[in-house]
Amino acid sequence: MVRIDKRSNTDLRPVKITRKYLKYPLGSVLIEMGETKVICTVSMEEKVPPFLKGTNQGWLTAEYGMLPGSTPERKVRDVVKGAINGRSQEIQRLIGRSLRAVVDFSKLGERTIWIDADVIQADGGTRTAAITGAFVALYDALEKLKREGIIKEIPIREFVAAVSVGIVDGEILLDLSANEDMRAEVDMNVVMTESGKFVEIQGTAEKTPFTHEQLQHMLNLAKQGIMRLIEIQKKTLGLL
Amino acid sequence: MVRIDKRSNTDLRPVKITRKYLKYPLGSVLIEMGETKVICTVSMEEKVPPFLKGTNQGWLTAEYGMLPGSTPERKVRDVVKGAINGRSQEIQRLIGRSLRAVVDFSKLGERTIWIDADVIQADGGTRTAAITGAFVALYDALEKLKREGIIKEIPIREFVAAVSVGIVDGEILLDLSANEDMRAEVDMNVVMTESGKFVEIQGTAEKTPFTHEQLQHMLNLAKQGIMRLIEIQKKTLGLL
Amino acid sequence: MVRIDKRSNTDLRPVKITRKYLKYPLGSVLIEMGETKVICTVSMEEKVPPFLKGTNQGWLTAEYGMLPGSTPERKVRDVVKGAINGRSQEIQRLIGRSLRAVVDFSKLGERTIWIDADVIQADGGTRTAAITGAFVALYDALEKLKREGIIKEIPIREFVAAVSVGIVDGEILLDLSANEDMRAEVDMNVVMTESGKFVEIQGTAEKTPFTHEQLQHMLNLAKQGIMRLIEIQKKTLGLL
Amino acid sequence: MVRIDKRSNTDLRPVKITRKYLKYPLGSVLIEMGETKVICTVSMEEKVPPFLKGTNQGWLTAEYGMLPGSTPERKVRDVVKGAINGRSQEIQRLIGRSLRAVVDFSKLGERTIWIDADVIQADGGTRTAAITGAFVALYDALEKLKREGIIKEIPIREFVAAVSVGIVDGEILLDLSANEDMRAEVDMNVVMTESGKFVEIQGTAEKTPFTHEQLQHMLNLAKQGIMRLIEIQKKTLGLL
Amino acid sequence: MVRIDKRSNTDLRPVKITRKYLKYPLGSVLIEMGETKVICTVSMEEKVPPFLKGTNQGWLTAEYGMLPGSTPERKVRDVVKGAINGRSQEIQRLIGRSLRAVVDFSKLGERTIWIDADVIQADGGTRTAAITGAFVALYDALEKLKREGIIKEIPIREFVAAVSVGIVDGEILLDLSANEDMRAEVDMNVVMTESGKFVEIQGTAEKTPFTHEQLQHMLNLAKQGIMRLIEIQKKTLGLL
Amino acid sequence: MVRIDKRSNTDLRPVKITRKYLKYPLGSVLIEMGETKVICTVSMEEKVPPFLKGTNQGWLTAEYGMLPGSTPERKVRDVVKGAINGRSQEIQRLIGRSLRAVVDFSKLGERTIWIDADVIQADGGTRTAAITGAFVALYDALEKLKREGIIKEIPIREFVAAVSVGIVDGEILLDLSANEDMRAEVDMNVVMTESGKFVEIQGTAEKTPFTHEQLQHMLNLAKQGIMRLIEIQKKTLGLL
Repeated sequence: MVRIDKRSNTDLRPVKITRKYLKYPLGSVLIEMGETKVICTVSMEEKVPPFLKGTNQGWLTAEYGMLPGSTPERKVRDVVKGAINGRSQEIQRLIGRSLRAVVDFSKLGERTIWIDADVIQADGGTRTAAITGAFVALYDALEKLKREGIIKEIPIREFVAAVSVGIVDGEILLDLSANEDMRAEVDMNVVMTESGKFVEIQGTAEKTPFTHEQLQHMLNLAKQGIMRLIEIQKKTLGLL
Repeated sequence: MVRIDKRSNTDLRPVKITRKYLKYPLGSVLIEMGETKVICTVSMEEKVPPFLKGTNQGWLTAEYGMLPGSTPERKVRDVVKGAINGRSQEIQRLIGRSLRAVVDFSKLGERTIWIDADVIQADGGTRTAAITGAFVALYDALEKLKREGIIKEIPIREFVAAVSVGIVDGEILLDLSANEDMRAEVDMNVVMTESGKFVEIQGTAEKTPFTHEQLQHMLNLAKQGIMRLIEIQKKTLGLL
Repeated sequence: MVRIDKRSNTDLRPVKITRKYLKYPLGSVLIEMGETKVICTVSMEEKVPPFLKGTNQGWLTAEYGMLPGSTPERKVRDVVKGAINGRSQEIQRLIGRSLRAVVDFSKLGERTIWIDADVIQADGGTRTAAITGAFVALYDALEKLKREGIIKEIPIREFVAAVSVGIVDGEILLDLSANEDMRAEVDMNVVMTESGKFVEIQGTAEKTPFTHEQLQHMLNLAKQGIMRLIEIQKKTLGLL
Repeated sequence: MVRIDKRSNTDLRPVKITRKYLKYPLGSVLIEMGETKVICTVSMEEKVPPFLKGTNQGWLTAEYGMLPGSTPERKVRDVVKGAINGRSQEIQRLIGRSLRAVVDFSKLGERTIWIDADVIQADGGTRTAAITGAFVALYDALEKLKREGIIKEIPIREFVAAVSVGIVDGEILLDLSANEDMRAEVDMNVVMTESGKFVEIQGTAEKTPFTHEQLQHMLNLAKQGIMRLIEIQKKTLGLL
Repeated sequence: MVRIDKRSNTDLRPVKITRKYLKYPLGSVLIEMGETKVICTVSMEEKVPPFLKGTNQGWLTAEYGMLPGSTPERKVRDVVKGAINGRSQEIQRLIGRSLRAVVDFSKLGERTIWIDADVIQADGGTRTAAITGAFVALYDALEKLKREGIIKEIPIREFVAAVSVGIVDGEILLDLSANEDMRAEVDMNVVMTESGKFVEIQGTAEKTPFTHEQLQHMLNLAKQGIMRLIEIQKKTLGLL
Repeated sequence: MVRIDKRSNTDLRPVKITRKYLKYPLGSVLIEMGETKVICTVSMEEKVPPFLKGTNQGWLTAEYGMLPGSTPERKVRDVVKGAINGRSQEIQRLIGRSLRAVVDFSKLGERTIWIDADVIQADGGTRTAAITGAFVALYDALEKLKREGIIKEIPIREFVAAVSVGIVDGEILLDLSANEDMRAEVDMNVVMTESGKFVEIQGTAEKTPFTHEQLQHMLNLAKQGIMRLIEIQKKTLGLL
């Protein structure tokens, strides 16, 4: 099997992260992974959800959306249908959990960070691109808060990034494009920190259940991809 | 650490599956795993979603709800809030995927199976109980269709069941109760077939990322639990 | 005419009320009237609606729902349709009014009691079963509050129960099953206290208007049924 | 007790029904009962709900609303709150049932009649005024259909009207105004045909349950009121 | 071309404004422009939107609706569709802006005025009739507040009224009826004060773009119509 | 007065239109007017609204949205609030009308064109930028349809563009930025064709009504701006 874009099975697509993409948010990036393009923005609110009041702890929450023109068939707006669709809800909950896992909220104070990930072009892996990109926007936003003296240090424990792996026509592939994703027997999203620990594993076999061996293989490949992504995040932030 | 209900770390809670629990649905069970109680019902519609029309393939979809009295704090009804909450959406999508993975839709004809899982008492593990219980109700429903001559054979490839595992106070536990779930550093749901293949893995570290070794340990423990659950399913159905 | 289940025209269906059916709510019962099965739960909130603030009076409100598998045709969830349907709204308002009529709110303090009635199997008379069952759950809940010293006495003036009567094929029947209800010319729900006073009468002739004589006959029959139900409530509560 | 507007306990308020109040609907009236003012309109659709397709039977359905300026406190629009409130739903279902009880749908053909009752000023008894007024608009609409040759005869079996009765400060009153309604111990709405048969009885004791004797007294008084209203309907229609 | 109702191209339809049309609101009128009939009511709330808190400034907001029987085809209620339709939203925003332009909010105090315009019969020009009528109801309401000593003077800078103009079959017409509006190449609504200044111009060419000369002609004609409407407003209020 | 960005009162901000901005839609551009950035996409559906069925005429409809990060304060998503807000509805109706005015639908066939305008950064004039940009995307889309032989000619009668003008601190300005817009006494949006005809004029004086002379001045300035924008559209499309 040869992948449409000539990548080898273990290649990421070209990754480009443009910082300070928009002028108003505290942090913002445009992340492009191949043809997948996601705008990630970060804003802050000086309050926390009720369950955190008085704890001196902060919070982070995420929302995810897709523009009507981001998909091959025009996507009907959620507000027209009357509700956020289930898939978007799952994704925004995943993004929130993934970033919360590396933020030290005791150093943020009673503030809520809002992450918005809006897909302007979807070619597979939008949720993992959103996590990888949103982390960079979050880092920028927190650094700005530090520069302004609002917080004393950047309350991030370690870097985090995400990638998809999957089994397509029996082969294990890294970073699936939409075309590969649609044909995949198994689809797995992995979120991992720079120390190699798992934040989230979501593996799904809609067509064919997978074996323990296939799982191991996919997890290893995901790890390689994530380590490369974290390197790119660091370069983008001027830390390497 | 001793678990509240004196179980060892590798014990399931007592499991009870009551078949033919309600009189109208094609299939229905009450599944109890410890104090968690879920009504699972199966109904059928003589049509399929648009993307399957004319393919001679069936479909299966699931919905999940919780009664207001099912939780320690009264749960506000979704309809009062105006929308299915994100967590319920995730769960019902998971239930649907898990059961679809073992049904041979080419043998069902253009019919849609509706799974409803309604939690009447929630003490942790409602989504995995729903999958394990709904499978039995589904089997009963399909057997009835076969008896009535609507389908020629029961279109199920193999049994499927689900269980949670997690890390609580550093220890790896099987089948978490609500109390354990709330304290968990890592929470993982595993859906597996009787041949030991994975249908779904969802592992989440909201507090502390987990290592590859911990992951292996959890997956092994989940497998043991699921094999016991499939045995219970078979006994309940009179197949053992 | 012989009734499907061989009852005489003046018989109730078998009634069974299971107390403490769920572990979390303040009070909970499963009431079964023939094949009709309703879970009734009671919870409490330490606040009242705005119009009662500062009056030292309590309040009681009710909600009613039906599980998808409770009816012969799968019932679409309210939240999927986007609103509580009109029939459910009528019923939950009726349940609330019926129970409020026997509670002495000046002895409850500024607290709101929530009644939830969720039908798991519907074979006619779900609203009257909900009232009869919810009263028992309410009594249990209030007794618990008294035991815990939160209130000084059980603020209930007298017992209340409800039953349906109707005219089917020209004959006056007590406690209609779904099959009888569908064929009924007149359908009437009566809510009455143990002293024989009316709390609510709702009589409807969708097909054929009814005479004053028929009305009297129906009210007498309803009274007999309700007196038997109140006896069952008292026995269930260990008061007889 | 003397009533605010000097009526005796058994008096109706002044009733005025203006026919052909609006130019577009098939039938329309403005009904005024004292200060209560309701616009009732009738329109028709050349189709029936799914359950009547192919039966050659017609249908009738009703909707009820209140203008923001119709009440002492500005009433928030239903659409702003996001849903028809429970009370409006109950009322529109009542109006529909009441009128359906006197229409011979086998003579209407497969058509649906829409009744709209919109309150422009509310001073008690809006639902009963809506029924009494809507009947006149319905009669006008059906007569027009007959004149146009769409139906052969006016498919109405007998006249129908409605009135409220209640117990206020222990006295039984006819046709309660808003002020009386708010103070009422018992509130009852009665819908009756010209032959003296009941179409609907809805009696509610939110504060004090009522006796069988009080019920009889109220029903007699309601009957007197309704007979007078039917006379007014006939005079308005030029039939007396 | 002769207009259906024999008016010349520069004639208004007959205008009738009935003050104190309803008993509860602070101000209320029924305005009739030909067959167009709109109930305009004014109420007041002792609070302002968040952005005005502490400024000692008032606010004014408007809502607009149409009764189901107001149009040739029965209009489905907004609440049934689930949302205020776009056209109604535009109109209520226009009404609000138009009246805000002539109110001196620094003399109102921190109060919000609610304008409700409800169309009971629609024959073109409902939004302009609503503005013209609502101004009279507003004047009445403010005068009442002054009489009651709540405000010291009527905080209105100058009178305001509105009218439509348009191009139909190439001719420029004043005050279009529904029939003319439907055939119009250009439709323009003008809101103007008594000193001849524009508050709002909304001109739309859905079929044929219009020239600068046509625009001037339409604006002149609108001015004439508005000056006549302001005279009628003043006569209605007894100020002329 | 000197404008923040040093422009003279009659200058447009720098305009940049990037064609083929996204890969899936039939047409797409990113239009930038100063700091305002809007993605405009065009898609097509092979059906028309019911009122056009069988007429062999096409249709065009538009939707408008803003990303959460597009404004200084994070903008809550419409779907979270539960409805498209009034301002967005007005704007999308304006965009639709403006483009429909120059399309010859008899040459499109029974097809619906969907325009989506999504603001990624808002610094004033988003609606006029959306119209100007969407026209270019529409032209591209129609040219593609022609190339593919689906239509015989590009069914556009003439070019159309839009710009805002306004009065700020008494001075008449072209193409207001957000800062100017907030301080404006009068705000006007003008949509005009290349032959100098008006498609839409929307002038609003929330603070101070404006005179006839000011109106003329604003219209002249708008015309100059629009002529420059149409030149830019043509250059972007390679037609100049």
